[in-house]
Amino acid sequence: MAQGIKIVTIGGGSSYTPELVEGFIKRYDELPVRELWLVDIEEGKEKLEIVGNLARRMIEKAGLPIEVHLTLDRRAALQNADFVTTQFRVGLLDARAKDERIPLSYGVLGQETNGPGGLFKGLRTIPVILEIVQDMKELCPDAWLINFTNPAGMVTEAVLRYTDHKKIVGLCNVPIGIEMGIAKLLDIDHSRIRIDFAGLNHMVYGLDVYVDGVSVKEKVMELLSDPENSSFVKNIEGQGWEPEFIRALNVLTCPYHMYYYKTDEMLQKELENFRNGTTRAEVVQQLEEELFELYKDPDLAVKPPQLEQRGGAYYSDAAVRLISSIYNDKRDIQPVNTINNGAIASIPDDSAVEVSCVITKEGPRPIVHGDLPVAVRGLVQQIKSFERVGAEAAVTGNYDTALLAMTINPLVPSDKIGKAILDEMLEAHKEHLPRFFKKINV
Amino acid sequence: MAQGIKIVTIGGGSSYTPELVEGFIKRYDELPVRELWLVDIEEGKEKLEIVGNLARRMIEKAGLPIEVHLTLDRRAALQNADFVTTQFRVGLLDARAKDERIPLSYGVLGQETNGPGGLFKGLRTIPVILEIVQDMKELCPDAWLINFTNPAGMVTEAVLRYTDHKKIVGLCNVPIGIEMGIAKLLDIDHSRIRIDFAGLNHMVYGLDVYVDGVSVKEKVMELLSDPENSSFVKNIEGQGWEPEFIRALNVLTCPYHMYYYKTDEMLQKELENFRNGTTRAEVVQQLEEELFELYKDPDLAVKPPQLEQRGGAYYSDAAVRLISSIYNDKRDIQPVNTINNGAIASIPDDSAVEVSCVITKEGPRPIVHGDLPVAVRGLVQQIKSFERVGAEAAVTGNYDTALLAMTINPLVPSDKIGKAILDEMLEAHKEHLPRFFKKINV
Amino acid sequence: MAQGIKIVTIGGGSSYTPELVEGFIKRYDELPVRELWLVDIEEGKEKLEIVGNLARRMIEKAGLPIEVHLTLDRRAALQNADFVTTQFRVGLLDARAKDERIPLSYGVLGQETNGPGGLFKGLRTIPVILEIVQDMKELCPDAWLINFTNPAGMVTEAVLRYTDHKKIVGLCNVPIGIEMGIAKLLDIDHSRIRIDFAGLNHMVYGLDVYVDGVSVKEKVMELLSDPENSSFVKNIEGQGWEPEFIRALNVLTCPYHMYYYKTDEMLQKELENFRNGTTRAEVVQQLEEELFELYKDPDLAVKPPQLEQRGGAYYSDAAVRLISSIYNDKRDIQPVNTINNGAIASIPDDSAVEVSCVITKEGPRPIVHGDLPVAVRGLVQQIKSFERVGAEAAVTGNYDTALLAMTINPLVPSDKIGKAILDEMLEAHKEHLPRFFKKINV
Amino acid sequence: MAQGIKIVTIGGGSSYTPELVEGFIKRYDELPVRELWLVDIEEGKEKLEIVGNLARRMIEKAGLPIEVHLTLDRRAALQNADFVTTQFRVGLLDARAKDERIPLSYGVLGQETNGPGGLFKGLRTIPVILEIVQDMKELCPDAWLINFTNPAGMVTEAVLRYTDHKKIVGLCNVPIGIEMGIAKLLDIDHSRIRIDFAGLNHMVYGLDVYVDGVSVKEKVMELLSDPENSSFVKNIEGQGWEPEFIRALNVLTCPYHMYYYKTDEMLQKELENFRNGTTRAEVVQQLEEELFELYKDPDLAVKPPQLEQRGGAYYSDAAVRLISSIYNDKRDIQPVNTINNGAIASIPDDSAVEVSCVITKEGPRPIVHGDLPVAVRGLVQQIKSFERVGAEAAVTGNYDTALLAMTINPLVPSDKIGKAILDEMLEAHKEHLPRFFKKINV
Repeated sequence: MAQGIKIVTIGGGSSYTPELVEGFIKRYDELPVRELWLVDIEEGKEKLEIVGNLARRMIEKAGLPIEVHLTLDRRAALQNADFVTTQFRVGLLDARAKDERIPLSYGVLGQETNGPGGLFKGLRTIPVILEIVQDMKELCPDAWLINFTNPAGMVTEAVLRYTDHKKIVGLCNVPIGIEMGIAKLLDIDHSRIRIDFAGLNHMVYGLDVYVDGVSVKEKVMELLSDPENSSFVKNIEGQGWEPEFIRALNVLTCPYHMYYYKTDEMLQKELENFRNGTTRAEVVQQLEEELFELYKDPDLAVKPPQLEQRGGAYYSDAAVRLISSIYNDKRDIQPVNTINNGAIASIPDDSAVEVSCVITKEGPRPIVHGDLPVAVRGLVQQIKSFERVGAEAAVTGNYDTALLAMTINPLVPSDKIGKAILDEMLEAHKEHLPRFFKKINV
Repeated sequence: MAQGIKIVTIGGGSSYTPELVEGFIKRYDELPVRELWLVDIEEGKEKLEIVGNLARRMIEKAGLPIEVHLTLDRRAALQNADFVTTQFRVGLLDARAKDERIPLSYGVLGQETNGPGGLFKGLRTIPVILEIVQDMKELCPDAWLINFTNPAGMVTEAVLRYTDHKKIVGLCNVPIGIEMGIAKLLDIDHSRIRIDFAGLNHMVYGLDVYVDGVSVKEKVMELLSDPENSSFVKNIEGQGWEPEFIRALNVLTCPYHMYYYKTDEMLQKELENFRNGTTRAEVVQQLEEELFELYKDPDLAVKPPQLEQRGGAYYSDAAVRLISSIYNDKRDIQPVNTINNGAIASIPDDSAVEVSCVITKEGPRPIVHGDLPVAVRGLVQQIKSFERVGAEAAVTGNYDTALLAMTINPLVPSDKIGKAILDEMLEAHKEHLPRFFKKINV
Repeated sequence: MAQGIKIVTIGGGSSYTPELVEGFIKRYDELPVRELWLVDIEEGKEKLEIVGNLARRMIEKAGLPIEVHLTLDRRAALQNADFVTTQFRVGLLDARAKDERIPLSYGVLGQETNGPGGLFKGLRTIPVILEIVQDMKELCPDAWLINFTNPAGMVTEAVLRYTDHKKIVGLCNVPIGIEMGIAKLLDIDHSRIRIDFAGLNHMVYGLDVYVDGVSVKEKVMELLSDPENSSFVKNIEGQGWEPEFIRALNVLTCPYHMYYYKTDEMLQKELENFRNGTTRAEVVQQLEEELFELYKDPDLAVKPPQLEQRGGAYYSDAAVRLISSIYNDKRDIQPVNTINNGAIASIPDDSAVEVSCVITKEGPRPIVHGDLPVAVRGLVQQIKSFERVGAEAAVTGNYDTALLAMTINPLVPSDKIGKAILDEMLEAHKEHLPRFFKKINV
Repeated sequence: MAQGIKIVTIGGGSSYTPELVEGFIKRYDELPVRELWLVDIEEGKEKLEIVGNLARRMIEKAGLPIEVHLTLDRRAALQNADFVTTQFRVGLLDARAKDERIPLSYGVLGQETNGPGGLFKGLRTIPVILEIVQDMKELCPDAWLINFTNPAGMVTEAVLRYTDHKKIVGLCNVPIGIEMGIAKLLDIDHSRIRIDFAGLNHMVYGLDVYVDGVSVKEKVMELLSDPENSSFVKNIEGQGWEPEFIRALNVLTCPYHMYYYKTDEMLQKELENFRNGTTRAEVVQQLEEELFELYKDPDLAVKPPQLEQRGGAYYSDAAVRLISSIYNDKRDIQPVNTINNGAIASIPDDSAVEVSCVITKEGPRPIVHGDLPVAVRGLVQQIKSFERVGAEAAVTGNYDTALLAMTINPLVPSDKIGKAILDEMLEAHKEHLPRFFKKINV
């Protein structure tokens, strides 16, 4: 990392990229990026150009010497990279729409990270991630892979379990979103908050919460058991837990917990969206079109505020904060996805977890959290079982294993319905699932 | 245990008792029972008389010197007992009907052991079991408590966790039923089969299966993936797993797994029973009435064959086999509910499990089983979380804890629906839940 | 195992063989051995002939149709074997004398199993065992390897860790000797005793002791804290523990514990033997010569009683009992060396332990023992560390690793002295340590 | 902690106190101490006056508003304390001399922390610590107990296991000394070094070492395998490991490891000191007398440089750094003694360990370290067994338990010699062991 840092962003044509660029600009003093390589595939070329040009205008306006490279040649980009970030989406938003709509057509939540939709996102994504890791081992073996692509838990699990590249961190904006929400709830500055996060990606709990280092958990749980306060995180509507339930649970939940503790209500809402053509994928497709219209404006040289509605809030901050802490050996505490190694007692040592870590130049080092409360261990293990079987299916392309992952998912009500969903989704995503179909094609 | 053995059966007026008596008669040579005390409560007095007289006739016919005592005075019965068996049902079959029907009225499976119904069966049963244990510590501290009362897993967990009486074994006829089913499937004698059982009560898996000591798992899994063979255990209809699913799962399931891997189909079937007034409780109520009519016949001196339809198949065999192995230090292998102590890696050492054990005079000693397959760990942990939180609710009478147990149950689709079911069931079972209502009454 | 059993005994020319033959004769009814192949190396040819002829006379006298084959061709013998037993000694008793005398010349106990001598016995033995396992995988992949060769713990660890042949059991006569000793102490028949054994080879503890299934531990510990009773196991002189020490330890010890809890006294005694030329190796050499003189007698057709002084007491019984229980799927409880898998909490799951197991046709299945008492965990871990590092040194032939194993051994007082002993022993055993010296020769 | 901080130092008359005072002065800006209470017992009154007056002169010279209180009334001092530090020595240096000399008279190392001497230091100290904790629960329940009194590991274990006051940190200057030594070896500033410490007090290893966040372990191990470089930590003479040994061990050792890996050489050296009257206790007694002569000088208003020879190097820095990080919720990484909770895999979760932690306002939170290398697990477990049995003996005053602790200590060569040492030391320390002798006196 001699003369400035080389960052490679795979899926660089994403609408999120301006957020990331803003982050690099803001932290340039501590994180002197020299080259930013935005990589995309042929189908994303146009968006890559639009976003890339906006990035250049943003950097020019900030007066910084960061070079922006746009390329479709991933291997050229990876050469000697210091950090590789992944935010690509195999099959684009069309695929996400299928991930959501096919399960819903069977009366089942799609849930694009830990549900049937998430399984297929994993099946499409993991083989590509493994190829990237393969390239990295050759072209930039000391680089860190910072993965934002969902399902981040299953992806991190797959890289840890099926490759020997241990320099991977899975990153999610949910924990930072919870911190922001709690800060707002307490009406104090975010910097004063620290939460002990432990669990899995999109299945993370806040075991304790501190203001200026002093636990305020009792007060926060009291506030959260008031239904008025429960909607403290954006993008997924108000949690509105039954007060006695959240009081007995006695840990902070994340928005995705609603899929499991309010399955019925979430399903009703999504079935309505399904009928109205307003599932999240469809809403996002609309938002994205509008965003790219904005990005095209040659006078635009900042991240437009509309991006926040996209759901990427705090991504920039989380990502650049993490990269900077690694680069600078900051040893501050951040919640990331990494290998457990004893941090959470009831999860195997060699599995991926999302947990508060000290971030060092040699990567994240989890802080011990003892064990999760009894009441949440079951659900966490169930998602962990799902992640592991799903990752195995993605790597092997084995139909039976995929059906097993589908059926043990807590949102799927039977092996029979699971099989129906699986079969329709395999067919729908066929072109992006070579490990499942290669043999047939030959 | 000097001059013959004293057995105390609490809930002695149960329709199952003739089965047990038959067992004692058959094994009298190795298990010389001197006194059999059948204990029941005032409401069960009439049935106790009927069953007690049948028991006496059976023993007389067999020409054995076993004394049968009938009593409503539990403490008198417990004095110097060697083995105490519990097969009582707090609230009788009416309560079971509520356990099944109330959840179904909200579109939710009741499942009287590991579902919402099971939670309430636990809330009613555990306080009574703890009283029995309290009495035993005083009146027969060296006696073994052999518990058949469901939910056997939650009850065993509660006794292990909240008392210092460690001489408890939870017994279930499901494993023996699976062995019988597999023997039939392979068309060989049951005695040649051994299965490595590991999991929880009504959530137990067969990790391997042996004929004459040689693993035949591969063959058995192949047979089971043929839908025609899957209905190998009585009382719950054919499992009919998707072949690819059961192949990938690659362990034997128990009939209760259908509630979790075929939730939707089971729900549809039970909703139909609900509408037709043919839920299991209602069917059993009918059966019981018929059985007691038979039992009254002064010429009957054997267990009538109709009892097998009641669902107690093999109970006698399992129970008397267990008592005999303890009494005789037989060191044979039997699957029972006991403390884990390392037998199954991903379950806490101090939790109850259902696992193949060597049965010694000092009680069951689990055989190590390593860990459960990844795919089943999640569901098992979820039921374990449910059992532990449910046991805590039963002991404390705490409303919030009960709601937590209800909501984390995998059959309950949300905290809101869980609360509605909880509230209605608490009201319906009020008289049998003193720990929840005492304070209000005062 | 169609028409009778084929046994292969490697090191068949050992003086122990008549003991084994006696065992096969006694249990012929349950264990119909058809062929017994005694294998040895060129240097052992004469003894092989002597022992083999005695074996034939013993079998003839018993009137049994067991064929005895004598051969120097190990691979020919292994073809289609059912059980392979190993009782060879690389370098013969001369090597053992060096194992004992060289450390003593530095004022350090040699201890031929868990001490510096044991390290070298392991370094010589493990490569040969790995070759045998390699041959077995090819010639008799379903056969069980029953290893008696010391250091049995390190050897079992090496096979479990460095091969994929899991069908190995390490066998030792120490536990059965303790059972016999306790039976004598209590003046009852051995068959009524059961002990919960847990620990490592030659570092095994009796956690509880039962007569007819009832714990008599309290009484036994009281008897053992009386110095008069402590000498209850042959071959190593009276343990004579300080009464307060053994009372606080509160578990049965094995004779080899004297090397660690009475290091000083053992050292003084062995130094005297060293000076007088009466170390164990020298005594045994003398005994062996006498034994082989006896064996030559063409009129001898039974195991001569003098063999018991050799130290092999109960070997026959332990070995044949184990083989028979595997062959017959007896499911009785026996203490053997096998993979831990959770049986003892503070030892890694994948390590070898010596522990009470149920013996099935598919091998030993440990019974859970929870954890060892706090006071003994340290010493057990230390020997386990020694076994693992020693096994690694044996496999790799790495000098530094060998020095590490030597230095962490609890009998070795410093890295410097350890290095001196190591260097002299490496030189002395050079011809039997090809993995250490091959590179130099080339 | 409203208006400045109240510190209570028990054993305030210690010669170390000026070091501590210097620390508080240096860090006053971040750690505004308002009151420093030095507490001692009647026998220490004179020293307390001398040290207390020096402390006042130092503070006056620094121009800071810190009040120094001198008292013999511990309970008065503890009222509303924020931090309590303990550095007392029950029985003063005379007791230490006995701890060292009595074992040596039997040819055994005394080793005042993890050896026979350490056992007696624990037996004398732990009851007093438990009284202090009892007072704290009443008078300052939110205060942190920062314990420097040796044996710090056994003391921390005792407080964690036998009290419900979890706000204890055990502190030692060995890790900081290693960091300083490595910095010197690499000729770089100490602030650039970070070491992953894991193990037990005075039995701690450096698993990895970083400069500016980048691992330099390979280079450091190479330097350390050069005997010239091994003497990098003061107070205990050069480690001088055999190069092949330290290379294979492949972790940083601490000076106290010499007692275990160079037992023989250490024993020879100490036996010489024993004969010459120059054991460490005797040297320190001489040093202390000289120090107190210096302290009396009314013109002295700084910590005299001679204190560094006393062995307290970096104590001040370690202690004040820790207190400041807790007070300021600094979240920096420091090695301390605290509850393991999964940080080191092979040590029980509820045991005390010495491990790198993030220091927060709510106390130390260990960073996960996975497991210790195989080769060191045994010795670490042995000291942990010793600490636990020793702590139990201290709490119960049970003779048998004390003998067990003595005998399992790796420095003690037999139960018989252990008993002889125990008996003589019990008699010698009689007046400071009321839990052992109370009953006899009555």
